[in-house]
Amino acid sequence: MPILEILDYAGVAVFAATGALSASRKQLDIIGFLFLASITGIGGGTFRDVILGLTPVFWVLNPTYILVCVGVALLVFFGAHLVESRYKLLLWLDAIGLSAYSVMGAAKGFAATGSATVAVITGVLTATFGGIMRDLLAGEPSVLLRPEIYITAALSGALAFTLATEAGLSLLVASIIGASCAFIVRGGALKFGWSIPSYRARPGRHPDDIP
Amino acid sequence: MPILEILDYAGVAVFAATGALSASRKQLDIIGFLFLASITGIGGGTFRDVILGLTPVFWVLNPTYILVCVGVALLVFFGAHLVESRYKLLLWLDAIGLSAYSVMGAAKGFAATGSATVAVITGVLTATFGGIMRDLLAGEPSVLLRPEIYITAALSGALAFTLATEAGLSLLVASIIGASCAFIVRGGALKFGWSIPSYRARPGRHPDDIP
Amino acid sequence: MPILEILDYAGVAVFAATGALSASRKQLDIIGFLFLASITGIGGGTFRDVILGLTPVFWVLNPTYILVCVGVALLVFFGAHLVESRYKLLLWLDAIGLSAYSVMGAAKGFAATGSATVAVITGVLTATFGGIMRDLLAGEPSVLLRPEIYITAALSGALAFTLATEAGLSLLVASIIGASCAFIVRGGALKFGWSIPSYRARPGRHPDDIP
Repeated sequence: MPILEILDYAGVAVFAATGALSASRKQLDIIGFLFLASITGIGGGTFRDVILGLTPVFWVLNPTYILVCVGVALLVFFGAHLVESRYKLLLWLDAIGLSAYSVMGAAKGFAATGSATVAVITGVLTATFGGIMRDLLAGEPSVLLRPEIYITAALSGALAFTLATEAGLSLLVASIIGASCAFIVRGGALKFGWSIPSYRARPGRHPDDIP
Repeated sequence: MPILEILDYAGVAVFAATGALSASRKQLDIIGFLFLASITGIGGGTFRDVILGLTPVFWVLNPTYILVCVGVALLVFFGAHLVESRYKLLLWLDAIGLSAYSVMGAAKGFAATGSATVAVITGVLTATFGGIMRDLLAGEPSVLLRPEIYITAALSGALAFTLATEAGLSLLVASIIGASCAFIVRGGALKFGWSIPSYRARPGRHPDDIP
Repeated sequence: MPILEILDYAGVAVFAATGALSASRKQLDIIGFLFLASITGIGGGTFRDVILGLTPVFWVLNPTYILVCVGVALLVFFGAHLVESRYKLLLWLDAIGLSAYSVMGAAKGFAATGSATVAVITGVLTATFGGIMRDLLAGEPSVLLRPEIYITAALSGALAFTLATEAGLSLLVASIIGASCAFIVRGGALKFGWSIPSYRARPGRHPDDIP
């Protein structure tokens, strides 16, 4: 199985797991697990395919992806109680999904258009869209608004992959470089609390200049 | 008018009505009624067409659907005060829309791909997407998170239609079976409070293992 | 540069600025600025292209639009503290974006389908979608639910442009008429608090017939 396909299934499976874990935190029923797992698992790739004009989208062409989501949802439904800290697991699985999808998204964007700019953007969007949809639908505060490195990790993965590809490295090597970059950045944020300075209003100007 | 077209207009009209009723509950102006009615009415079908690659989407090809949404929004704007319990009406209309769209979505998905798995998924997504968008935009708690049977009803409708079609039944019969299944399941949930067991953390493990 | 292209870049740039200002109000980091600016800047047009079947979407075909969003986000990140009232600025830039995009959306919808109904709808959706996504992702109350004229402004712009086009006026004149209409309506709402009567339950019926 080629590297991109492995990354694709890995991305779908771990994102599906984060959706199912989110469902377990909300105490939904089994159908809620299936739904959130599927939306999170295939959301990012669906969005990527739609904007690139690659329709019908990937899971319509190959429904195995749906079955992966269903399997993962069932596994989490019956097995989540075995896990000590489900929230921690969710965050680390999400980091793996983010890494896999930042490369997959960039690779598909680059293959479809030949543009490095587009590749970086589709990488970031693919990697973050599933998690954003999950948080939005589960009614949790969006990962976007947390003061952590998240989109930055997707950006570094997509950027590293695209630069490595432009530099003539093979797909396999570029994919490994990209996914590693993203995982190191996101993992560091989770493990060591890395963050980048956020916007602060300068003295004399308040962010609360709100009517 | 063939069965699928009837189901389609019915789905659009009743979902549009639920959007307009949601607008009335939020005391929006007439334009807010038109907007929420249209988004809810055509949202599910739009999503279905986009992922299947059937673009331009259905209401671009046939703007009558938009006019149906406009008519329904006006009707609700001027007539909603005649209704005793608008919330109850919204729920039952939503049940009809869900039933019609679970079949329509499955039928279009099956026709476009020939895959039963895809048909079930597009059925569920088409039936639930409009209501999810409505709740998200109106700032109401998503139907996803309520401890009621909702997605399950869409799933049973889509599944029944797809199995009936695979069994060689005619489109008309399969549609009636599918829509009836979905309506009975959702109606039972509304009338008798049916629900399926939701996920509960086992003793010793708490769902609040949240940092 | 033809009028539609100017309106397009203007729409992207000012919507991107509103997204970045929203990020500054939420005190996000630079990547959060880039992300919200891009989503808001290209969201409406992306949605328009997808439903019209014009994929790959405009910014995939021409990544300059992304670079505009990046530039605007950087400008706001480093310059927003110079602005006395960022919220007021956000509202007025949003009004300009709304005006430009109601015409752009209607023009593209009309060109793609020849239908006046579709043109009006794509105009409204293109003009409002970016702002709706911005508010949803930034966790702010949606502009949809505020008791102000907003969608109505987009509607008047799209309607005026479409009528002017149907009346045989040139693209330039129709665009100016449409954008002016939208801006006057939205500007009046901001400046003078214009609003249209919202739905009120008649005596004896309460909007709170909620279980």
